[in-house]
Amino acid sequence: MTDATKPSSPYDLPDVSGLVVGVLGGTGDQGRGLAYRLAEAGQQVVIGSRSADRAANAAAELGHGVRGADNARCARESDIVIIAVPWDGHKALLETLRPELVGKIVVDCVNPLGFDKKGAYALKPEEGSAAEQAALLLPESRVTAAFHHLSAVLLQDPGVEQVDTDVLVLGEERAATDAVQALAGRIPGMRGVYAGRLRNAHQVEALVANLISTNRRYKAHAGLRVTDV
Amino acid sequence: MTDATKPSSPYDLPDVSGLVVGVLGGTGDQGRGLAYRLAEAGQQVVIGSRSADRAANAAAELGHGVRGADNARCARESDIVIIAVPWDGHKALLETLRPELVGKIVVDCVNPLGFDKKGAYALKPEEGSAAEQAALLLPESRVTAAFHHLSAVLLQDPGVEQVDTDVLVLGEERAATDAVQALAGRIPGMRGVYAGRLRNAHQVEALVANLISTNRRYKAHAGLRVTDV
Repeated sequence: MTDATKPSSPYDLPDVSGLVVGVLGGTGDQGRGLAYRLAEAGQQVVIGSRSADRAANAAAELGHGVRGADNARCARESDIVIIAVPWDGHKALLETLRPELVGKIVVDCVNPLGFDKKGAYALKPEEGSAAEQAALLLPESRVTAAFHHLSAVLLQDPGVEQVDTDVLVLGEERAATDAVQALAGRIPGMRGVYAGRLRNAHQVEALVANLISTNRRYKAHAGLRVTDV
Repeated sequence: MTDATKPSSPYDLPDVSGLVVGVLGGTGDQGRGLAYRLAEAGQQVVIGSRSADRAANAAAELGHGVRGADNARCARESDIVIIAVPWDGHKALLETLRPELVGKIVVDCVNPLGFDKKGAYALKPEEGSAAEQAALLLPESRVTAAFHHLSAVLLQDPGVEQVDTDVLVLGEERAATDAVQALAGRIPGMRGVYAGRLRNAHQVEALVANLISTNRRYKAHAGLRVTDV
């Protein structure tokens, strides 16, 4: 039934349930939240940290079969690797993990932001965005960008059964973005939506500053839905 | 019942049904679409163009009591003025209309974008964003940014009864953003959501490049909803 000359439907996504997902920076709020939701959905998850002990402790707290490892081992043992470290440590971490990340699907969810008394504002990385920095540092990895707009509070709250948001997924390679969309779709309430190439990642990362303003005004944990898709 | 020491609810918005709305660039697709929807919702609408005749013709086509005028008269006769011109003509137009726009609520919905064979990409104005350029050029106006992510196709299609999207509204002054949120809420299906200060306008304008990629992939007219608000 497949016709190689015809583009497949954007709604046909691969089965990624057998893939191992690593979360670098998995002991931070965003990393823990993602690890928890993915593991709860049945995905094999390894969280990485500079300290293997700290990763193991966080993994034990999360349950659902999550394992802990130092960052290098986490990257090596995973098929899809989510980068959930603070922007400050982004470049240095990726430089050291280049060999371990060769051939892997890398998912950058880092938001370069500054804060002052007026709230959050976007930082503009030299490379254009965190995701483009990752792509430059990891030329042999399959770099995508996704999971920017999630509330770490909602992700980590076991009382929240569905996380009511779409996940914008960006990247250069269709098979990689399809896999990341499918991964997002494993979490109840979430859906992965293709949202362009990495050269358009900056505004997606930066939009978190707007959601922070929205959250402050409405006392909410705002997410995003894409309509008509 | 009012307590001046307590911030009002973000869901309490003013009644703007009596205000006159001008749409500069009202003969373009986006401008016509907005004029049509607002007029159909019962708002008094004036569309502006360089040529008063062209504006009058477009207004007659739109019906619903829409009037046409040259840009300067459109600005003068309106309480809220939507800037819906192409990015190329943005600066020159605002420079000429500075006196007419004094004291008005200005709503910038311009998206500075470039296009090449890979699709759309964000341009970065020197001032940070189109909205910040407007604020610099119009220091005596009440500049906001909104209506960036609307599909001109859906706006103009009389068969579409509801436009299924939220409208992110940015600005420095609460009374102005509240009025623009209320205006967005006049269009069936739409809702205005506060999304931060003008220094965070760039990513909201630039996100249109992502929605263009989404539209191309899904053959859709994507809009955005903010969840938990």
